[in-house]
Amino acid sequence: MSLKVMKFGGTSVATTERLQKVADRIIKAKEAGDQVIVVVSAMGKTTDSLVSMARKVSDRPSKREMDVLLSTGEQVTIALLSMVLIERGCPAVSYTGWQAGIKTEAVHQYARIGSIDTSLLRPELKKGNVVVVAGFQGVTEDGEITTLGRGGSDTSAVALAAAFGAETCEIYTDVTGVFTTDPRYVTRARKLKEISYDEMLELAYLGAGVLNPRAVEYAKNSRIKLVVRSSFSEEKGTVIKEEVSMENPRSVRGLAFEKNVTKVTLLGLPNNVATVSHVFDALADKSVNVDIIVQNVLDEEQTSLSFTIDHELLDDTLDVLHARKKELGFQNLIFESELAKVSIVGSGMASNPGVAAQMFHALARKNIKVKMISTSEIKVSTIIDEEKLLEALNTLHEVFRLAEEESISL
Amino acid sequence: MSLKVMKFGGTSVATTERLQKVADRIIKAKEAGDQVIVVVSAMGKTTDSLVSMARKVSDRPSKREMDVLLSTGEQVTIALLSMVLIERGCPAVSYTGWQAGIKTEAVHQYARIGSIDTSLLRPELKKGNVVVVAGFQGVTEDGEITTLGRGGSDTSAVALAAAFGAETCEIYTDVTGVFTTDPRYVTRARKLKEISYDEMLELAYLGAGVLNPRAVEYAKNSRIKLVVRSSFSEEKGTVIKEEVSMENPRSVRGLAFEKNVTKVTLLGLPNNVATVSHVFDALADKSVNVDIIVQNVLDEEQTSLSFTIDHELLDDTLDVLHARKKELGFQNLIFESELAKVSIVGSGMASNPGVAAQMFHALARKNIKVKMISTSEIKVSTIIDEEKLLEALNTLHEVFRLAEEESISL
Repeated sequence: MSLKVMKFGGTSVATTERLQKVADRIIKAKEAGDQVIVVVSAMGKTTDSLVSMARKVSDRPSKREMDVLLSTGEQVTIALLSMVLIERGCPAVSYTGWQAGIKTEAVHQYARIGSIDTSLLRPELKKGNVVVVAGFQGVTEDGEITTLGRGGSDTSAVALAAAFGAETCEIYTDVTGVFTTDPRYVTRARKLKEISYDEMLELAYLGAGVLNPRAVEYAKNSRIKLVVRSSFSEEKGTVIKEEVSMENPRSVRGLAFEKNVTKVTLLGLPNNVATVSHVFDALADKSVNVDIIVQNVLDEEQTSLSFTIDHELLDDTLDVLHARKKELGFQNLIFESELAKVSIVGSGMASNPGVAAQMFHALARKNIKVKMISTSEIKVSTIIDEEKLLEALNTLHEVFRLAEEESISL
Repeated sequence: MSLKVMKFGGTSVATTERLQKVADRIIKAKEAGDQVIVVVSAMGKTTDSLVSMARKVSDRPSKREMDVLLSTGEQVTIALLSMVLIERGCPAVSYTGWQAGIKTEAVHQYARIGSIDTSLLRPELKKGNVVVVAGFQGVTEDGEITTLGRGGSDTSAVALAAAFGAETCEIYTDVTGVFTTDPRYVTRARKLKEISYDEMLELAYLGAGVLNPRAVEYAKNSRIKLVVRSSFSEEKGTVIKEEVSMENPRSVRGLAFEKNVTKVTLLGLPNNVATVSHVFDALADKSVNVDIIVQNVLDEEQTSLSFTIDHELLDDTLDVLHARKKELGFQNLIFESELAKVSIVGSGMASNPGVAAQMFHALARKNIKVKMISTSEIKVSTIIDEEKLLEALNTLHEVFRLAEEESISL
């Protein structure tokens, strides 16, 4: 008997009617003889509305209390979905993060899963019960409720798949798979049949939004095959796995982007080897995730340092940097918000040095100013004004001919 | 340093604006030098709307899953209230039932608290933190989430007061105290200054609705002085304690009532000593609380048995009785819904045998048919049609002159 993990996102469980559709799929899997662990997110816009309640009472709500608050969202879903399944004659039992033994590090709002105690769910699975687990949440060794950050339910699902030795983890969402880029921005975006973990990881980290990057990492490390598909149609999804057949490798496979980017620049930093690490140690202490980093040495004594962060982390960033201004030794801090990151991703890029230049030319022709650049083996990222995002995406999708099936068949 | 337990009900925490008022009171208590444990209910109509979501997906939702669902209500409140307190510079920390070590028996929806592990909250209280605990919920030894039934937050508050050795437990609610009867039904209802545990217990059990009866029991057993008062005014509340000064004891102190009463009658039961206990054992197994019981022996062989239950428990009652029909040996089962219970309560009643008769006369004069009667040392209860409730209450309030202050001063 094989074990299957099925994860349903917020849109898939948004209403009690949709819970019935989700139950259809679960019952089908159960009838096929599988043991089934289901992971669910909060219903629809629940998390957003909880966040806005918190913002009404506090400008910067306690992170510990935010986790206590937000974790209720998934708890509502697991109870209702279990009721639906039981009502339909399919024995089911719900588990919150702490009940399922999902242990995380002691960090609020962006915790990582440390371990899962499989002995808690095993007896229920053996009894033939569908086990419905709250995604996005866990508990520390000290019994504090933690959450895994937006998209954390994907991570919960993959971590459970790994812990229970499942081969496949199905991620049911509101799109039919992984696209060359977000179809809401580029109408000609096309669904990919397969993609490698590494490419997906770049797309995920770069903000493709379909899958949480930590989830892809976990899947890669544990060799869990991911299937991204729609809750609402029978259409085949996108398979994410180690080896992808590439008959006709092309330099660019997809476009990723991210909004709400803020660029922070420290001016007049002392030019010594320890400066940069001090800055990022300080930020890491506050769990501020830094993305693109650019350093510019002005002369022998001084250097400037720019980096991008999610706009939500700006308050924390400013706090920690101002508090340690003397110690870090910078003279001035400036920041620029309402920026976006646009990236081209593809395994074939490494062997094709002209690709980056092609990207910059295309943007320049449209008069889109590139404010920062970052490259890796399989991607080139640029920071631009957020208001130019749509134009940039459509231009690049066109230039790299991503809508054309044959040229990038996998 | 003394420790104070303050409990705020659903209406008191219904909006984020009201949470600010609640915070005012907590901060005032903290500034007076007390250690403070706060117990809160779900915000406003949250529990009702969760219940109606459950009913949308299942006619008879799993009780286990109902507890998982409903317990989210209080969890939202503890997080938001803690945020409000922290925002206002008053250090606070939230605890769910399971985090606070509130252990209950393994019964869903109506669990009783077994023990509270005080070692979990003590360190926070010592640090000077206000501890905000989710009422109404607990956890079994096996880590199952349980709830204590409607009004269960009162019980949580009193149980915490007892466990932590608090002298007083303040119950903040939407009324200014305990009244001779519900002022929404009888406009001349009057607030009592003091009342004894026993009288309050009768009033509470009989449905006065201000305080949960289990909470009064706990308070009585642990000698915790209860103060019932309004969240919205500075008016003094009603003190509930062991000894009440009764200068001018009067036979009737208050009227209690309950709606949604259903009467179930078993006809043609074998007339032997074990019959009645078999029936109620069967119901107890399903956690069906039975209220008034009347047995009528028809002849040497047969007996009939009537009892009242809350209408919500009718499904469970019918299930268990039909399933065991053969074993219990009854011939027919009939039930009547849309009934109400009206009771007169007072310590002085025992020495005044005319009181019950006075009650029946008053009801008869208004043509209100009494369908069942039950009496104790300090109360007389009658079952009538629910549509006659308002008339019955106002008549009895008048007849026993409950609006007159001097005659029943405590």
